[in-house]
Amino acid sequence: MCAQYCISYADVEKAHTNIQDYVHLTPVLTSSILNQVAGRNLFFKCELFQKTGSFKIRGALNAIRGLNAATLGGKPKAVVTHSSGNHGQALTYAAKLEGIPAYIVVPQTAPNCKKLAIQAYGASIIYSGQSDESREKVTKRIMEETEGILVHPNQEPAVIAGQGTIALEVLNQVPLVDALVVPVGGGGMVAGIAITVKALKPSVKVYAAEPLNADDCYQSKLKGELTPNTYPPETVADGVKSSIGTNTWPIIRDLVDDVFTVTEDEIKYATQLVWERMKLLIETTAGVGVAAVLSHNFSNSFSRSKRMFCIVLSGGNAISSV
Amino acid sequence: MCAQYCISYADVEKAHTNIQDYVHLTPVLTSSILNQVAGRNLFFKCELFQKTGSFKIRGALNAIRGLNAATLGGKPKAVVTHSSGNHGQALTYAAKLEGIPAYIVVPQTAPNCKKLAIQAYGASIIYSGQSDESREKVTKRIMEETEGILVHPNQEPAVIAGQGTIALEVLNQVPLVDALVVPVGGGGMVAGIAITVKALKPSVKVYAAEPLNADDCYQSKLKGELTPNTYPPETVADGVKSSIGTNTWPIIRDLVDDVFTVTEDEIKYATQLVWERMKLLIETTAGVGVAAVLSHNFSNSFSRSKRMFCIVLSGGNAISSV
Repeated sequence: MCAQYCISYADVEKAHTNIQDYVHLTPVLTSSILNQVAGRNLFFKCELFQKTGSFKIRGALNAIRGLNAATLGGKPKAVVTHSSGNHGQALTYAAKLEGIPAYIVVPQTAPNCKKLAIQAYGASIIYSGQSDESREKVTKRIMEETEGILVHPNQEPAVIAGQGTIALEVLNQVPLVDALVVPVGGGGMVAGIAITVKALKPSVKVYAAEPLNADDCYQSKLKGELTPNTYPPETVADGVKSSIGTNTWPIIRDLVDDVFTVTEDEIKYATQLVWERMKLLIETTAGVGVAAVLSHNFSNSFSRSKRMFCIVLSGGNAISSV
Repeated sequence: MCAQYCISYADVEKAHTNIQDYVHLTPVLTSSILNQVAGRNLFFKCELFQKTGSFKIRGALNAIRGLNAATLGGKPKAVVTHSSGNHGQALTYAAKLEGIPAYIVVPQTAPNCKKLAIQAYGASIIYSGQSDESREKVTKRIMEETEGILVHPNQEPAVIAGQGTIALEVLNQVPLVDALVVPVGGGGMVAGIAITVKALKPSVKVYAAEPLNADDCYQSKLKGELTPNTYPPETVADGVKSSIGTNTWPIIRDLVDDVFTVTEDEIKYATQLVWERMKLLIETTAGVGVAAVLSHNFSNSFSRSKRMFCIVLSGGNAISSV
C-alpha cells in the first residue's frame, strides 16, 4: 500500500503514537430523536469537542511532530499556512505546543472574526491580496524570510495520517459499526479514515458526504479521474470548499465506497437539527455528513435496517451570537 | 426535616427510584479553556442533554408518577400547567409516557415557536389573555373541565424532590466536589439540590445564581423574609423570571449557602463563552450559573484555589437559526 498511496496504515499508527497524549479521545454520542428522524442507528463522533474545536489538530500536530523528528539537529524554524479556518487555528496551536512560531497568510478582506481567532491562538497574520497568485507569492516570501515549512491542510501525507486516527478510535468505540460517513473537502480526513478502516476492517464502508455546490469528489469518482471544482464553490459549508488533490484522490478513488451530495437546504436543516435536538454547536461543515444520512439518496441506497452508521461531526467553530 | 420543609431527603430517594429508568444520567464535562478563564476547576452537569432538553423532566415525571401511585384505582385524568417553557414541554412528555393528556395554558401573545414546540410534544394548547387573572381563570376552568391536576413548575413538592436527583448524581460523578452552583427562578431545582446535598454531605456548599434583574432570591436572603419580584422582571434568562415561593423559600433560607447575582451582559458573555469554547448549545438561563462563577463577586468571595465547583447547565432549549 505504501507504494500505491502517499501513506499506509503504519503511518496512521505512528501518528496515533505521536499525538495521542495531546489530543482528546472525543466521545461518540447517540440521540434517540435523530435515530427516529433518520430511521437508523446513528453514532456521532464528536470532533467538535476536539482541541481547537475541530479534527484538524490531529493532522497539524502529527505533521509538526513528524517534521521535528525528521529535521535532526533542530526543530523547523517556523510553520506557514494560508488557511484562515480550522487548519490555521490547529497549526498555530500545534506549533505553540512545539515552541515554533506560526505564520498564517490571510487575504486582507478576510472577516475580522477570523483574524481575531488566529491572533487569539497566537499566530502572526500576514496579509495577501485576494487572488491565488498573490496568496502564493506572499506565502513563498514568508517561507523564505522565516525559513518556515508549509504544512498543506489536506495533501500533506502526515496530515492525512493524523486524520486517520479518528477511524482508529471509532472502530474501538463502536465495535459493531457498519459504515463511517465523513465530510469531504480536500479529502485529508476521508482518505486517512479510508486507509485505516480498509486496513483494519475492510467490511466497514467509508462514505464521503459533499455539498452539491462543491461536488468535485463526486464528479471525480463518477469520471474516474481527478476533477477539481472549476470555479470557487458557493456553499454554507465553508470547511469543504477545497477540491480533493493528487495525494488524496488515489485513496478516495480506490477505498471510499461512495459519495453522497447534499443541497444547501439539506445542510442547513441537518445543522439546525443537531443544534436543536442534540444541543451540539456543530459548524455547517459537520452538518454535511448528517445531511447525507438524512437525504433521499441515502434512503434509496439503504433500506431502513439495523445497520450502524457513524457520522464524524468534524468541528464546532460556528460563529453565533447570544 | 419532614416537618420543617415540604420535602425530605427520603422524597428525593423515592424520586430517584421513580424516574431513573426514564431520564438520562447526564454527563459531567470539563473544559480546560473555561478553567483558564475562571482560574478554577469547573465541572459542568449537562442537563441540556436531558430528555426534553432540560432538567424539568425530572420533577414533572416524578410528580406524575407520584400522582399515579397516590390515586389508587386509576391515573389522574389529565395534567394542566401554564408554563409554555421547559416545564410545559417536560410535563407533556412525562404525561405522554404515562398515557395521560396534557393541557398547557398559554397567553394568546406567546411566540409561535413556543406554541409549535408544545404541539410537537403532543399537548393541547389552551389560550388565555395576558393577565395573571385571565391565566388563572382559564387554568381553573380547564382543570374542572378535564378533571385534571395542576402540576406547579417549582412549588409542587414532588417536582422539588425530582430536581433533587441532580445532586444525587453529581455527588457520585464528582466525589471531590466542593460546591454546586445552580440557577434560581422559582427555586425548585436549588431547593431539591440543597435538601440532597445537606443530607448526604453537608460540607459541600450550595450556591444560587440569579439575574440581578430578577433578584428576589438574593433580596429574600438579605432581608430574611420571602420577597418576591414586585414587577415582571426583564432578563434574557427567561427560565428564571419566576420568584421563589412559599415551599422553596424555607429551604433556600436555611440550606442555600449564598446567592450570587449577575448582570445581563455577564449572562450573555457566559452563554456565548460556553457556545464558542465548549460547543454546548446552552440556553441563557443555564448561562446564569456560569456567569456567577466568572463574576467579580465570586472572585472576591473565593481565592483562586483548587476547589471544585460544579455548575448545573440547566437546559439547552435556545432558539437559533443556521
